[in-house]
Formats: sequence, structure tokens, C-alpha cells
Amino acid sequence: MSSSEENLRSVHLRWTREGRVFAGGSDRGPRVTLDGDGVAGPSSTEFVLLGLAGCMGIDVLVILEKSRVPVKDLEVGVVGERAESAPRRFKSVRLTFRVTGPAPEDQAKLERAVQLSRDTYCSVLHTLRPDLDLDIRIERV
Amino acid sequence: MSSSEENLRSVHLRWTREGRVFAGGSDRGPRVTLDGDGVAGPSSTEFVLLGLAGCMGIDVLVILEKSRVPVKDLEVGVVGERAESAPRRFKSVRLTFRVTGPAPEDQAKLERAVQLSRDTYCSVLHTLRPDLDLDIRIERV
Repeated sequence: MSSSEENLRSVHLRWTREGRVFAGGSDRGPRVTLDGDGVAGPSSTEFVLLGLAGCMGIDVLVILEKSRVPVKDLEVGVVGERAESAPRRFKSVRLTFRVTGPAPEDQAKLERAVQLSRDTYCSVLHTLRPDLDLDIRIERV
Repeated sequence: MSSSEENLRSVHLRWTREGRVFAGGSDRGPRVTLDGDGVAGPSSTEFVLLGLAGCMGIDVLVILEKSRVPVKDLEVGVVGERAESAPRRFKSVRLTFRVTGPAPEDQAKLERAVQLSRDTYCSVLHTLRPDLDLDIRIERV
């Protein structure tokens, strides 16, 4: 792996010796807890959905800011459906963006921001399988 | 999306209105912080790498336990390399498993556990693009 430093992302996780609980994080930032049983922290599959929500959420914030569309609040909900048999990968994912701030006349810009993230910018989405069934909803609230 | 409850994973993230910082989690568990700038918490791409580390780490723990191979400590390091241009997806990922506990004669079982996770069990890995360049190293320490 030869690459300039800025293209690399480095993380580590260490088993806490309790159940399926791991602690770790990026090599530069604060620690997080991951729990395979979803009690002490999100599970590993939930971490991926959170990464997807964050990636598209940030894209949408940045694009709307450039478009001068005001955003007061943004919540991203993600529901993923896993296959029934191993490896139990995600087959489909539904994302719901709930945005406060944009006016009714900003609806087209809001939809365009989500579309740009989906098609062009979101690093996490494009790291996932291309055959993932993706359903995106946008709600101005 | 019609599915039995057990196949669904549900998370949410809400913008904190500060920079690129979001807070959220699974609908049943404690909150985590995601920060696009990697300061207040891991970034969205780092969340995906952490999910991958946790998923394979848990698989390896479970498989070694079934094989009666003792594990005292397990650390998983992940370095991902992103594409230089948008959507800047991960092109390659290197995972390093550092395991304390298994004896030299357990080496084959240790390698087999990692292989089973990679080929058969890891939900997160199989949710990622099949063309991801994956390099896995195992160190008994």
C-alpha cells in the first residue's frame, strides 16, 4: 500500500475481554465502544449504517451551504435489512433525511444535494456493494 | 421493506449544529459521536473501518472459542486507502490481527478462523464492494 498520507485512514479496536465488547477509534481521536450485542455500544453492522448516515449527512450540509440554503436541523435515519443466512450482509438500506430550515422553494436544491451525495460524493456509499438496494426519502419538517 | 424484525438494524444521527459533528446511535443503545473532521469522534469513513474490525474480530473470537483455542487479548488494526478523486471510496484495506493466547500449534486454527470470517461469516465485509483489495495479516504476540 503506497499512498500519500492524506488518503489513508487508520483505526484500531481492542477486545475488552468482556463479551463481544471492543474499544478503540481512529489513531488520532477519542475512543468509541463497539458491542456485538449492541448494549455497551452500537454493533459492527450498526457502525456501517452510522458511517453511511454521517457521510451523506455531511455531504448534504456542505452542498446546501454552498447553495445558500439554510439548515437549522438535520437528522438522518437508516434502516438496513440483512440477509437471513451467512454472511448476513445488508441487502437493502432505507435512508430518511429530516431537514429543518429549507423553504418549500428550496425543495429542488435539497433533492439535488442528496442526489449529488448519492451519485458523486459519498465515500462510504461507494465503498458498499453496488447491488445494495437503496431507498432514500427526504422530509422537510 | 418487509422483513422479520431480527434482520433489521436501525440507527439515527442528528447534526449537533457544530461543524460536521453528529450524535446518534442504534435505536436501542448508547449514543456515539461522529465528526467529519475526526476530532470529536471518528469520521464516517473511519466508522466503516471500525465496523469491519469489530465484525471480523468478533467472528474470530467466536470461532476460536468453539475450537477451544484460548484468547487472552485481541487487537485489530485497519488501514484503508481512499481513491484520490470523488467519491473517494476505499480502494484497499489492510487488516492486522494481533492475538495473544494461542500457542504456536494453534496457528493453523487461528488462520482458519480469520479465513472463515473473510469467506463465510463477516456481514460487514460482504456488504462492502467485492473488488475491494483486502490484505490480512495475523500476528501471535
